[in-house]
Amino acid sequence: MATPVNVALMGLGVVGSGVARALLEKGDVYARRLGRPLRLYRVLVRDPDKRRALPIDPAILTTDPARVLEDQQVHIVVELMGGERPAADYIRQALARGRYVVTANKEVMAKHGPELLALAHRQGVDILYEASVGAGIPIVSPLKRDLSANDIRAVRAIINGTTNYILTRMDSDGLDFTTALAQAQELGYAEPDPTNDVEGHDAVYKLAILASLAFHTRVPPEAIYREGITRLQGRDFRYARELGYRIKLLAIARRAAANGTEALEARVHPALLPQGELLAKVDGVLNAIEVEGDLLGRVVFQGQGAGAQPTASAVVADILDAAQALAHGRPPTPWQGDAELPLRPMTDLECRYYIRMEVADRPGVLAQIARCFGDHRVSIASVIQKETNEAAQTAEIVIMTHIAREADVRATMADVQRLDVVCEVGNFLRVEG
Amino acid sequence: MATPVNVALMGLGVVGSGVARALLEKGDVYARRLGRPLRLYRVLVRDPDKRRALPIDPAILTTDPARVLEDQQVHIVVELMGGERPAADYIRQALARGRYVVTANKEVMAKHGPELLALAHRQGVDILYEASVGAGIPIVSPLKRDLSANDIRAVRAIINGTTNYILTRMDSDGLDFTTALAQAQELGYAEPDPTNDVEGHDAVYKLAILASLAFHTRVPPEAIYREGITRLQGRDFRYARELGYRIKLLAIARRAAANGTEALEARVHPALLPQGELLAKVDGVLNAIEVEGDLLGRVVFQGQGAGAQPTASAVVADILDAAQALAHGRPPTPWQGDAELPLRPMTDLECRYYIRMEVADRPGVLAQIARCFGDHRVSIASVIQKETNEAAQTAEIVIMTHIAREADVRATMADVQRLDVVCEVGNFLRVEG
Repeated sequence: MATPVNVALMGLGVVGSGVARALLEKGDVYARRLGRPLRLYRVLVRDPDKRRALPIDPAILTTDPARVLEDQQVHIVVELMGGERPAADYIRQALARGRYVVTANKEVMAKHGPELLALAHRQGVDILYEASVGAGIPIVSPLKRDLSANDIRAVRAIINGTTNYILTRMDSDGLDFTTALAQAQELGYAEPDPTNDVEGHDAVYKLAILASLAFHTRVPPEAIYREGITRLQGRDFRYARELGYRIKLLAIARRAAANGTEALEARVHPALLPQGELLAKVDGVLNAIEVEGDLLGRVVFQGQGAGAQPTASAVVADILDAAQALAHGRPPTPWQGDAELPLRPMTDLECRYYIRMEVADRPGVLAQIARCFGDHRVSIASVIQKETNEAAQTAEIVIMTHIAREADVRATMADVQRLDVVCEVGNFLRVEG
Repeated sequence: MATPVNVALMGLGVVGSGVARALLEKGDVYARRLGRPLRLYRVLVRDPDKRRALPIDPAILTTDPARVLEDQQVHIVVELMGGERPAADYIRQALARGRYVVTANKEVMAKHGPELLALAHRQGVDILYEASVGAGIPIVSPLKRDLSANDIRAVRAIINGTTNYILTRMDSDGLDFTTALAQAQELGYAEPDPTNDVEGHDAVYKLAILASLAFHTRVPPEAIYREGITRLQGRDFRYARELGYRIKLLAIARRAAANGTEALEARVHPALLPQGELLAKVDGVLNAIEVEGDLLGRVVFQGQGAGAQPTASAVVADILDAAQALAHGRPPTPWQGDAELPLRPMTDLECRYYIRMEVADRPGVLAQIARCFGDHRVSIASVIQKETNEAAQTAEIVIMTHIAREADVRATMADVQRLDVVCEVGNFLRVEG
């Protein structure tokens, strides 16, 4: 059998251990598929003396990044440290030295992907990052290869398992946000500090990666509109169900016109989704990514979006791919960032809106509210007066609009909030589809 | 720009026209992605004088297969004729002459795939067949690449849109089979002669392809157990729903032990699926393929499984891939048919069973039936006495078994059918999961 391919891991946390375990336990299978052995050659760790459940030769552990980055024997550098720094710098160095790189790092790929892909291309190598979105669910590679005959029209995704778990519990068990979050934390689905998930940062990174790939452009994460799930209340789920919808945290990127030229919408926020849609049926910690192409129609990729083993599945597939590319000298797919689609401002978004407000329970209130909508040319599709609080003499009103421009809806809300008869605008949600 | 890649189509029917249209209309996009033009160089047709809606230069049309197969200028042969002969022979000739081949032909790939892949490998070229299963839904390429770090445990799929449409209508609208089929035919979802779909032949071909890929073995279509949907009645859907299930035509391939050695189950039949499962929610003409891997867990690929454009999406992706391989001399993934897993006989299957029977409506009947089950060690999980026909003095009984061996259940059924008190065993369905 041919000489081995030497793989160096940077990071031996949850994902790193999963990858190391797969390489150690399934080495024979991979060697047979590849035609040469894959050798776990070096592993960068914080503490080499930590007790580990893995049968790793202690001699390959190191705390010195140079022993990975500067060793000529390393063929593939696998970055599994997470976080922007120093991971991005290590990846840059590895590519600059002509190494193939595999990473699961969504933050690095969202912020520096286009630059790193261009660097890889100049160096005649590649950087592979299937695991950075949706763990083991194939989506990066299908966008690069299998859907390449299509002009992609839209990507809509549930790509954060933590929030999807919380929303599912709020919906099906009537929990409020705080209780559902606490249960997610108990089960290990949410971090002690859940900000990154519940405020949508994690989904924004993943959407930046998907949108850049799907639309052959650069979508920086800071340009993506972001809204978390903390404002949702149990009653929103009840009203949504009554109207035939589910509420999901969606990451959406879609071709759209802006001022007559082509542009891109890119946004992460909770949305009402008709209950018949595939994405509306994705429950619990599952992830699902829907891609709409001009030829293909809609295709959905669904599975576990996190976890050591599902992530290792994608990382090892990328390692096998890099090893084949190394062996056969296949040049990487060049970075095709030629399109440079501008992002459409959120205020130009056009969709239907769900608005829940608490109002004084007396005659003439609806007329005043309706006038605000009319003033901004926002057309009301339906009004439902919901639960009345007799003690406070207030009632809850849920309004669904026809398709309207977000700027107009926001202006309407500002006016509505100034009305004496309106106690509070409780929530304001976009409707998808 | 570099010299063009010459593509020859064999067949200009629905799919062929879709592919030709994509190549003609989106040529600029593909050329940019590829770095060289893709040229529609020749098209084999039955009748060159037929009026076509496509702007194809009549000079490239031919009725002579030799003008595709023997022309040195052809780089990629795209077989879209369908059917086993002469398609398989043309593909063989094209590969033997060192051409890359792209095909959407499930029958050819199911029956001759391993031989054609081996031939391609010997010739240093490749045969690509993403469109042969699930049209534009990526599944062949993910099994080859993205899931390659996994040992696949099971593939379960809804891969025939015609039957899924019929079953969905029978379930949601209470139609009987004949009416649902007639509506499917009216809408163009079913052929005038629907045998190939409703008897499960189409699904068997696709399962043969998927199972061979997933398990690195050869699964000939004639070895796959096959049962169509014609015996299902409206009441089966009602009873299934009451019990918490949906009925789907499933194509299943799964690792299983047989006599202590590793083997493979491969079967196509209607099955009861718990309503919470992803596949149970796949309705209408949609297809979905679920793959379970040791690292990955379950992942589902879902979308339109038929149609000119979705199929063209997969065919053109394969053409682009072949063109890249041509340009960069990437050798094809070798055929890995080393495992040769034996197929487990259907009589060794172990699962739960749903049995519906019409019996005399008098005391002691259930005792006689239950004794037959006991005689064969088939344990009954629940019995529900359903609608009674007072005129005929008969009642309907639905029995769910615990997990049992199929041979024992069949022997039980034979005994039950001999009982005087049993008018008819109406249906007998396997339960998945």
